[in-house]
Amino acid sequence: MRIIIDAMSGDNAPGELVRGGVLAQREQNVDVVLVGRTAEIQKLLLDCGAAENPHIILEDAPDIIDMHDDPSTAVRRKPGSSMAVALNLLKNGAGDAVISAGNTGALLTGATLLVRRIRGIRRAAMAPVLPNGGRGTLLIDCGANVECTPEYLLQFGYMGSFYAKSMLGIPQPKVGLLSNGTEDTKGTELVKAAHALLQDAAAAGRITFIGNVEGTDMFSGRADVIVTDGYSGNIMLKTAEGTIKFLMKNLKSALTASTRAKLGALLVKNDLNALKKMMDVREVGGTPFLGIKAPVIKAHGNSDARAVSSAVRQAVSFVNAGVIAEIESHIEFMKIRGGED
Amino acid sequence: MRIIIDAMSGDNAPGELVRGGVLAQREQNVDVVLVGRTAEIQKLLLDCGAAENPHIILEDAPDIIDMHDDPSTAVRRKPGSSMAVALNLLKNGAGDAVISAGNTGALLTGATLLVRRIRGIRRAAMAPVLPNGGRGTLLIDCGANVECTPEYLLQFGYMGSFYAKSMLGIPQPKVGLLSNGTEDTKGTELVKAAHALLQDAAAAGRITFIGNVEGTDMFSGRADVIVTDGYSGNIMLKTAEGTIKFLMKNLKSALTASTRAKLGALLVKNDLNALKKMMDVREVGGTPFLGIKAPVIKAHGNSDARAVSSAVRQAVSFVNAGVIAEIESHIEFMKIRGGED
Repeated sequence: MRIIIDAMSGDNAPGELVRGGVLAQREQNVDVVLVGRTAEIQKLLLDCGAAENPHIILEDAPDIIDMHDDPSTAVRRKPGSSMAVALNLLKNGAGDAVISAGNTGALLTGATLLVRRIRGIRRAAMAPVLPNGGRGTLLIDCGANVECTPEYLLQFGYMGSFYAKSMLGIPQPKVGLLSNGTEDTKGTELVKAAHALLQDAAAAGRITFIGNVEGTDMFSGRADVIVTDGYSGNIMLKTAEGTIKFLMKNLKSALTASTRAKLGALLVKNDLNALKKMMDVREVGGTPFLGIKAPVIKAHGNSDARAVSSAVRQAVSFVNAGVIAEIESHIEFMKIRGGED
Repeated sequence: MRIIIDAMSGDNAPGELVRGGVLAQREQNVDVVLVGRTAEIQKLLLDCGAAENPHIILEDAPDIIDMHDDPSTAVRRKPGSSMAVALNLLKNGAGDAVISAGNTGALLTGATLLVRRIRGIRRAAMAPVLPNGGRGTLLIDCGANVECTPEYLLQFGYMGSFYAKSMLGIPQPKVGLLSNGTEDTKGTELVKAAHALLQDAAAAGRITFIGNVEGTDMFSGRADVIVTDGYSGNIMLKTAEGTIKFLMKNLKSALTASTRAKLGALLVKNDLNALKKMMDVREVGGTPFLGIKAPVIKAHGNSDARAVSSAVRQAVSFVNAGVIAEIESHIEFMKIRGGED
């Protein structure tokens, strides 16, 4: 297994990306390809005592795509960027998966243009797993596709279901459709049309569809997979993030508000840390792009070495899980009459 | 001032509604009209020692609209319901505002059909205020209008701004448009078109528009008013509610996880209670319907007497604030060429 890391990506590049790659190589017995400015990377490897490690391969890429690059053109305009080089390596079979902590839009466009979508898949989707105290809830799409068709949402339902089955270990993932109420009559025209398609797929025994779910189900565990368009998914994900941040900030204030509280805080510290860790987005792992021919994972922009190493573990699982083969073998069911063919 | 209470509404009717009305009458020197089954209400008043209170007026309504009634037809099908009677009293000037804890959709449809929209307002919107550690953030719309036009969103921006100015005491409320990114180019076609209209309104000096905001801004305080369609607003509100509930549940588990934590929990209890109270939806107050000719407030379905009394206080402020007159006097600016006229 060989995992390609876009070493110049994210807020902590290249240091944490390189250290994360080294950590993953040592702990997971995996080959890693570090893509970026070779001289800088070599120096960092030397600092880690990993300069001579034969399982760490360097690929030179002089250029960098950053947050200011236009996502829709970045990979074409900068073919020598670490992101473009990494994606081309994946395309050409020089590795099994790509991890990048860089510009999300550029990575998605790049993955679509260079690695390409699975034949018959209309749009690739971003599918992060949110903690829910159990195995987690997969949210698909969370931002890749602002405007969707019912067919896209049907495909997200299938892809999310396959991913959750293999990666979260849920034999029959419960797929819910995000709406503004649980009743079948609720939702936009898009939601109502997608509801009918998902219901048909469930009637044919291909997925387990539990109907509409609500924003409250982000953490309720009622659904294993929540299907929505990228606009609504983004709102949901960021609202949850913002709410967690706000509550954690206020919790901290409450625990330092008085001498009495400070004393109590010392006693509850260990148990609270477990909660904080559970809610930390960096612990959640990277976000896979589903619908691309090979695994591409977006790591959080502020990933540290530990988060990069977690993303490598996730990439290895993704490759081993056979999710992509499962999507390919079901593709005929995932298209609708009058779709984009 | 006379506030009309739909005494048969919500999970705790009529007991908590009647007790809330009595509480409000005593504490706020306001007249209350209790609408519902007079015999039941009379008995409850007797228990509170308020049977002879001349500032508590009873209006008989034999029927009840509940959660199983179809929202779009309920008020027409049940003209003798407490909700329909309450709204007709408001329409006929027998009171200054209506409070109901009942079926949200039925209340909205009823308010639109019976009390009617302000002339020129295309759709009434639901606008709850979320706590943000400061004066709160108004979210408009949060569920009344699933499918919107750019003009509706423009009107929500104005109405939210007027309400926040008077009710939250913010001289120049910062209005943000919910999107999947802060850049002007982000969003659905609806968002982009509404962005242009809100920008024009700001250029003319009529509102303060800060551009696109994200889900993370629900509690960040960056915007005082967040404008969105009812579908997305519902997702945002319910995701925030679900996240708070999940975190509070896990916080409770963490504080009882060990003997040490239990001891610490005793010490932090008071300071944590303030946090819990701040995040409690019942403390937030009711949700006003903006765009209706007279104030209609939806109280939370599980409102207790204290929450009902808070909703009465909010209704009194709403009447005194002159929000409706301000909307009426600005209505010409709030319409667009090619709108629904």
